[in-house]
Amino acid sequence: VNDALAGLEEQYGVVIGYRAHQPEIEVKVRAASLQLARRAADEAAARLGPDLVYGEGDAGLPEVVGGLLAARGLTLAVAESCTGGLVAELMTDAPGASAFFVGGAITYSNAAKTAALGVDPTLVTRCGAVSAEVARAMAEGARGRFAADLALSLTGIAGPTGGTPDKPVGLVHYALATPRGTVDRHLQHPGSRAQVRRRAAYAGLALIREQLRLL
Amino acid sequence: VNDALAGLEEQYGVVIGYRAHQPEIEVKVRAASLQLARRAADEAAARLGPDLVYGEGDAGLPEVVGGLLAARGLTLAVAESCTGGLVAELMTDAPGASAFFVGGAITYSNAAKTAALGVDPTLVTRCGAVSAEVARAMAEGARGRFAADLALSLTGIAGPTGGTPDKPVGLVHYALATPRGTVDRHLQHPGSRAQVRRRAAYAGLALIREQLRLL
Repeated sequence: VNDALAGLEEQYGVVIGYRAHQPEIEVKVRAASLQLARRAADEAAARLGPDLVYGEGDAGLPEVVGGLLAARGLTLAVAESCTGGLVAELMTDAPGASAFFVGGAITYSNAAKTAALGVDPTLVTRCGAVSAEVARAMAEGARGRFAADLALSLTGIAGPTGGTPDKPVGLVHYALATPRGTVDRHLQHPGSRAQVRRRAAYAGLALIREQLRLL
Repeated sequence: VNDALAGLEEQYGVVIGYRAHQPEIEVKVRAASLQLARRAADEAAARLGPDLVYGEGDAGLPEVVGGLLAARGLTLAVAESCTGGLVAELMTDAPGASAFFVGGAITYSNAAKTAALGVDPTLVTRCGAVSAEVARAMAEGARGRFAADLALSLTGIAGPTGGTPDKPVGLVHYALATPRGTVDRHLQHPGSRAQVRRRAAYAGLALIREQLRLL
């Protein structure tokens, strides 16, 4: 972020500060006038781009995503494995979540993936619980069972153990089931168990935000 | 806690300190010798009693409950409404959770309570979503669907809105389904939405710990 904003302080005569509460980074612009701050902030947002900049002010990504869902009248369900409920907890942290959040399943065991989401057990055997195929089946299962417009799934290896050369600690597969079909992604998150879980949850929310712009 | 430990410092010649990270309270005993600290800590634990004192050292209540479950070879599922996944998140925060944690359902909407846990919709209509009856049905539904030994449910009003004179903000109904039947409790938690949710989650974990001593 600092590299992308190089030269901005001199250009506008402002002071730029950062506060990172991982995985969110807050960029603060201080200036002699509101107008100067506004112009520098707009340029900072333009340089970073709309994929990275999701809001201005106090709202974190969960609230921003909740606001986008509520504004569109869309409902969300979740199917969480490695994050163990963190996405749901983030989405229901602010009041008013019942306007868009229906519920979800935390399917830590493979049996739970089948019982709660209808994931085909042979799919788990063939592809592994941490795979694009299972992530897609979890998202589609959650969308159907919870009768939600969108369903986000996450399945990965939070660590510190359980990694393999093929599927190392930090690997997380995501899928988002929508009325227009299902998309999937995977990311390799660095860090401790807590960091992997938190980064995974925010990456899942970022996927919802990304897809909402296309729906 | 301070009242219960009155006079202990003088009696043993130790210094007692507290650190409250709500809803947990850490009691620290400092003394000139390990032996003195040990004796004062034992007396402090005896005065507070085993209902309140769940551990010594770094482990918080979620890890203590996880350890008790793992030691007994018992599995846990959750059915969360007002806590929105917080109990599951706390139980899966430490590595090794897959030894005892199966999964669970976050049923924020009434429809989700029926779809994911098989709660009879007429029960919700008759008793309300925040009731002992629905809490029991949620716990029993989760125990069956996730094939777990124990299932904890929580349904309440996290606030800040949604309260009524009968069912004020902060009211939370709990149930724990076990192989020996189902118990339920309710508590009226003070505080903000975040505090109600956190206190509710810990009260749920305390109910598991309480019942594990009887199983």
